[in-house]
Amino acid sequence: MNRNEITEQIVVARLTKGLSWQQLTDAIDKPVMWTTSALLGQHPIPAELGKILVEMLGLDDSAVPVLAASPMRAGLPSAIPTDPTIYRFYEALQVYGGAIKELIHEKFGDGIMSAINFSVDMQKKAHESGDRVVVTFDGKFLPYQWVSADS
Amino acid sequence: MNRNEITEQIVVARLTKGLSWQQLTDAIDKPVMWTTSALLGQHPIPAELGKILVEMLGLDDSAVPVLAASPMRAGLPSAIPTDPTIYRFYEALQVYGGAIKELIHEKFGDGIMSAINFSVDMQKKAHESGDRVVVTFDGKFLPYQWVSADS
Amino acid sequence: MNRNEITEQIVVARLTKGLSWQQLTDAIDKPVMWTTSALLGQHPIPAELGKILVEMLGLDDSAVPVLAASPMRAGLPSAIPTDPTIYRFYEALQVYGGAIKELIHEKFGDGIMSAINFSVDMQKKAHESGDRVVVTFDGKFLPYQWVSADS
Amino acid sequence: MNRNEITEQIVVARLTKGLSWQQLTDAIDKPVMWTTSALLGQHPIPAELGKILVEMLGLDDSAVPVLAASPMRAGLPSAIPTDPTIYRFYEALQVYGGAIKELIHEKFGDGIMSAINFSVDMQKKAHESGDRVVVTFDGKFLPYQWVSADS
Amino acid sequence: MNRNEITEQIVVARLTKGLSWQQLTDAIDKPVMWTTSALLGQHPIPAELGKILVEMLGLDDSAVPVLAASPMRAGLPSAIPTDPTIYRFYEALQVYGGAIKELIHEKFGDGIMSAINFSVDMQKKAHESGDRVVVTFDGKFLPYQWVSADS
Amino acid sequence: MNRNEITEQIVVARLTKGLSWQQLTDAIDKPVMWTTSALLGQHPIPAELGKILVEMLGLDDSAVPVLAASPMRAGLPSAIPTDPTIYRFYEALQVYGGAIKELIHEKFGDGIMSAINFSVDMQKKAHESGDRVVVTFDGKFLPYQWVSADS
Amino acid sequence: MNRNEITEQIVVARLTKGLSWQQLTDAIDKPVMWTTSALLGQHPIPAELGKILVEMLGLDDSAVPVLAASPMRAGLPSAIPTDPTIYRFYEALQVYGGAIKELIHEKFGDGIMSAINFSVDMQKKAHESGDRVVVTFDGKFLPYQWVSADS
Amino acid sequence: MNRNEITEQIVVARLTKGLSWQQLTDAIDKPVMWTTSALLGQHPIPAELGKILVEMLGLDDSAVPVLAASPMRAGLPSAIPTDPTIYRFYEALQVYGGAIKELIHEKFGDGIMSAINFSVDMQKKAHESGDRVVVTFDGKFLPYQWVSADS
Amino acid sequence: MNRNEITEQIVVARLTKGLSWQQLTDAIDKPVMWTTSALLGQHPIPAELGKILVEMLGLDDSAVPVLAASPMRAGLPSAIPTDPTIYRFYEALQVYGGAIKELIHEKFGDGIMSAINFSVDMQKKAHESGDRVVVTFDGKFLPYQWVSADS
Amino acid sequence: MNRNEITEQIVVARLTKGLSWQQLTDAIDKPVMWTTSALLGQHPIPAELGKILVEMLGLDDSAVPVLAASPMRAGLPSAIPTDPTIYRFYEALQVYGGAIKELIHEKFGDGIMSAINFSVDMQKKAHESGDRVVVTFDGKFLPYQWVSADS
Repeated sequence: MNRNEITEQIVVARLTKGLSWQQLTDAIDKPVMWTTSALLGQHPIPAELGKILVEMLGLDDSAVPVLAASPMRAGLPSAIPTDPTIYRFYEALQVYGGAIKELIHEKFGDGIMSAINFSVDMQKKAHESGDRVVVTFDGKFLPYQWVSADS
Repeated sequence: MNRNEITEQIVVARLTKGLSWQQLTDAIDKPVMWTTSALLGQHPIPAELGKILVEMLGLDDSAVPVLAASPMRAGLPSAIPTDPTIYRFYEALQVYGGAIKELIHEKFGDGIMSAINFSVDMQKKAHESGDRVVVTFDGKFLPYQWVSADS
Repeated sequence: MNRNEITEQIVVARLTKGLSWQQLTDAIDKPVMWTTSALLGQHPIPAELGKILVEMLGLDDSAVPVLAASPMRAGLPSAIPTDPTIYRFYEALQVYGGAIKELIHEKFGDGIMSAINFSVDMQKKAHESGDRVVVTFDGKFLPYQWVSADS
Repeated sequence: MNRNEITEQIVVARLTKGLSWQQLTDAIDKPVMWTTSALLGQHPIPAELGKILVEMLGLDDSAVPVLAASPMRAGLPSAIPTDPTIYRFYEALQVYGGAIKELIHEKFGDGIMSAINFSVDMQKKAHESGDRVVVTFDGKFLPYQWVSADS
Repeated sequence: MNRNEITEQIVVARLTKGLSWQQLTDAIDKPVMWTTSALLGQHPIPAELGKILVEMLGLDDSAVPVLAASPMRAGLPSAIPTDPTIYRFYEALQVYGGAIKELIHEKFGDGIMSAINFSVDMQKKAHESGDRVVVTFDGKFLPYQWVSADS
Repeated sequence: MNRNEITEQIVVARLTKGLSWQQLTDAIDKPVMWTTSALLGQHPIPAELGKILVEMLGLDDSAVPVLAASPMRAGLPSAIPTDPTIYRFYEALQVYGGAIKELIHEKFGDGIMSAINFSVDMQKKAHESGDRVVVTFDGKFLPYQWVSADS
Repeated sequence: MNRNEITEQIVVARLTKGLSWQQLTDAIDKPVMWTTSALLGQHPIPAELGKILVEMLGLDDSAVPVLAASPMRAGLPSAIPTDPTIYRFYEALQVYGGAIKELIHEKFGDGIMSAINFSVDMQKKAHESGDRVVVTFDGKFLPYQWVSADS
Repeated sequence: MNRNEITEQIVVARLTKGLSWQQLTDAIDKPVMWTTSALLGQHPIPAELGKILVEMLGLDDSAVPVLAASPMRAGLPSAIPTDPTIYRFYEALQVYGGAIKELIHEKFGDGIMSAINFSVDMQKKAHESGDRVVVTFDGKFLPYQWVSADS
Repeated sequence: MNRNEITEQIVVARLTKGLSWQQLTDAIDKPVMWTTSALLGQHPIPAELGKILVEMLGLDDSAVPVLAASPMRAGLPSAIPTDPTIYRFYEALQVYGGAIKELIHEKFGDGIMSAINFSVDMQKKAHESGDRVVVTFDGKFLPYQWVSADS
Repeated sequence: MNRNEITEQIVVARLTKGLSWQQLTDAIDKPVMWTTSALLGQHPIPAELGKILVEMLGLDDSAVPVLAASPMRAGLPSAIPTDPTIYRFYEALQVYGGAIKELIHEKFGDGIMSAINFSVDMQKKAHESGDRVVVTFDGKFLPYQWVSADS
């Protein structure tokens, strides 16, 4: 059973067992966004945590070492996402991507926001005109630097 | 001169005149991310603000009514962005898009984050391991609702 | 059994059992377009309704919690639809999409028709030159608004 | 000057002259959606109407016969639209296209909605939760018929 | 067993049983091109004909109601066909498509050849330089007409 | 001025001068489909015919030798055509391509319809339910033959 | 078992049984390139030869009639080949395709090399700087001819 | 004037001046396929040869150093060629690419035909059934070898 | 079991058995990058080495001859890689590919780095600002040479 | 004049003036790979260096501030490179990308090679079988770390 097959099992088992992502998260004491993305196949899950999750979800123990390996990441079913909930983030990137780039350069200089030294958070926040989804992308600034290893 | 040609002129004129995005923003009293994306062709610019910006940038006055119209939005040169600074956001979406979707549904129910009733913010934040780029996507939650106009 | 597999089973079971979409709809008292799209994998189906439909179609009970979850939406088998009945809507968008955009902006200002606070209806209407398919897309107007959550 | 170049001139000239699509429409007594799509390059414009529009927009008279020819239709800049106002219709097709197809077949039999014997209308309709964009696609039902010309 | 799986079974069963398309056609008294495309998944097959064909091919009876439903049409394995026999028609469209369009407009006015009120025929015709494949596309002319249903 | 630029000039000049494709054809005594496709850049036009056409259209004489060369053929602006008049032929290929292939093999054996030793014709034919566009693709049958040049 | 599944079985069975393509070819007395491409799914294999090959490879007899049918040809797993051994031919086409076209036209006139009345050969040839792969594409010249069937 | 612009000028100038590729080749004493592909932008042309060709074609002298540089190679206007004369080679690769690969491995071992240490030749050869286009791809065999530079 | 299926088994078996790539490499005395890529389906594995690996991994012996054949190479799941660890090399190619090409031509003349007579190495190297991944692509320079086999 | 237009001018001016990349590099005392990629539009060039280069190349002074801005990076003309010299690196990534990923994870843990804190070097190295192109990608290892800014 490879990682993709395990992910498919996790998705169905979670629903069948009536477990929320938060409940799975609580069992391993990690941020909920990290746990959810890891269970969706995007991060290695250390064996000691994997064992807990595999048991809760009723999967086979043989999944544990596969879950513990660095996965082939990137999980969207198509290059341009089509699910509306995910698409809005792509759309925001189409509309604001150029501006975000310009302002990173204006505030930090030439470089990027790391997507590796990185965390994402999602909060439900109040507003008089209705609750808001607030998603924060928080990555270390990496300046373009021309560095070579010591020879 | 259509909107795309005006955008190209803005990009070059800003550099030649040595103006920062912040300076252009200060002149019209709007959020800097809004101003930058608008000048990059992503929002209509009301004529009274357009006049100020056109003058600062030394463009022709005939650009003002074109800037004031709702543009054909979405400004990335390719469906999958290739510039590294922009790509990292696409990568974050590939890695975390599924998890963000799941947690929006878990916390809010079936629906999406609006990308229209929406703002983006970018901050430089401190961390002992180096400054961080913190980008906040803040959109109204829109539940799936099957509504029809009054007949 | 994941949502896609359930959808495939529904499509075949409906035909084998000789049930119309209207009959399935009548059993759960929902709009027929909503029911059809939900059974085709595009909306979560509340468990109490899912039980009824699963029973009518002779599916396994384990499908109920999977049907009740927000699905990964967007169901066309290719980015550009090829089935002629569906393609005509894509063609209409190619031919009239630009004009629809212009007139939304002229009548409402800068913004969009929501596809979330939204309903679709299809009616058979008479005309001397032959019956007509009349499809109504009815979505709330969402003006572009730069709003942030209360901090 | 080919049709595409004329379309680009129309788009800019309309804004510069401060003409609404409705004003252009009123001058030729046609439905506003037809006029707008025709001016955006999607329909031939009969010479007597073309002359009126060309004059209003200040274009060269040589545009009239080019506007009068059947154009190479389909005007979206990319196969999958990226402008948010247009994209929502593509999204609705992704989410509801399968259901629309099923219900056309259930109500009419095997066939399609014509996109040629066809009209589109867009109305602003009231609802207590906010104004709604109501777009109606109205096409003749065409049953699949295996017909051959008289030999 | 969904329609695609039935189609795959038909393709193999026909060869294994040594049946020609003409023999299958003769059994149901329909045009051979219609029968062949229907068996390849492109048209609904009325149940009384489906029963005959299913029996000849040795398929399971449960296929009959699935064959009787309007299928998700369009059967090429890739957007640009690669099989040489099929590709030549795509090539002819690349080379002559523009001219066919121009001459339809010149002879009929603004409109299209219907692919729904339509038949195809293929004949083997003699010529001194060798037999010829003569394929006739015969569709009703549909003029662009701006028609709306009676309200 | 390369062939593409000449084609663009031909398209506009024909409309401006009010010439029909038939009139251009009559001047050079060739089939109208051949003439139209050649003028749209799909066939070399012998210099003596090119001179006549260039003069009628008011183009520069330097176009004659360029028109006389074998062009880089295939003139659709996108791999999948989007203009409705042209698209219907692509759709017919999607729906009937498989059946045409099967019947060519059943009637002729293993091989193809040539698109080189080939002609296309388009006729307006009567039918009680309305005029029909009848397009005939007529190509020599080429059997797959494993032949090598004499060594 | 359809043709694709048979091809997959052939590929594995040949290796497991330790048969070379030449050995398979010798058994049926055909050119080795023809035999190899036919076994890879690109040509129909007459039943009397198919029986020999099926037996050598240990496949089921039911494969014989499927192998004898004209296959859906074209066997590369992606439009642009990625396997280096195959890619070099695509690269040669990218670099020399334009020149080959020009010289075919210069030496033969307007037309093509047939890929149907065609053979391919591959030889190992000596050269002081190392052995060379010499692949010969040998196809009948087909001049563009506007021919119609006798009516 | 960059290389692409020079190539476009060469294509038109050759036709206008009535020069054959062979005549251009004769002037510089190189293989005609090399010369043609070089003039089409696929090889650097040494300055002393470039001067001769530039003069024959009536181009500006400033083209000489640009022609002498290694070009950005690969000249097909689309990934999948659409011109029929070029397409046949792509089709041959689709049909025979897998077999060519298998036989290279069977005759030479694991490796490729070089497309760099390489020549192409095209000959007109006789056959009783008509003249044949014989194109020879002749490249050095390169075995996969795991070699590293001397450290 | 074809090569792809064997590769999938290898990936899972290695994790389940807790074997490192280095341990597998040590068993066959080959460079670790070669072994890893071979086990991932990119190189033939000589039978005597294949036997050792198959046994270590607990696979079926029938895999040995399949592993020993030249595989259909190129293993990325999409043309543009999406896994971040792999994507960075694609990004480096987007940013530095043009410069690498220019400098190869400046230092070596017109030609390429072979990817066949080639090795890759990856080292962990120290630097005061953190460990570095140093990947070396080492390929024989191949000058463009117009060579033909001895006739 | 935008950055792309300046890059095009640089490419031609360098050839016309007979300057090597090394000579341009020597004038500004930077690594030659950095200078070349920067001049090809991939890095901002500080104004004091830009002035020197602009003068050497005979460009307009107005290019200096445009060269000094962070460019929209990524310079390949197509997603999959087609120039053979560049393609080989893409091919190496297709063949060895999976192995490189596995070994980075095995030697460093879960993470990536940075393409930002990064340098590339190209050397000509000797080998008895011919000179070798040795390209070194040298990037800081970035472990996946879930870090958030100080609040």
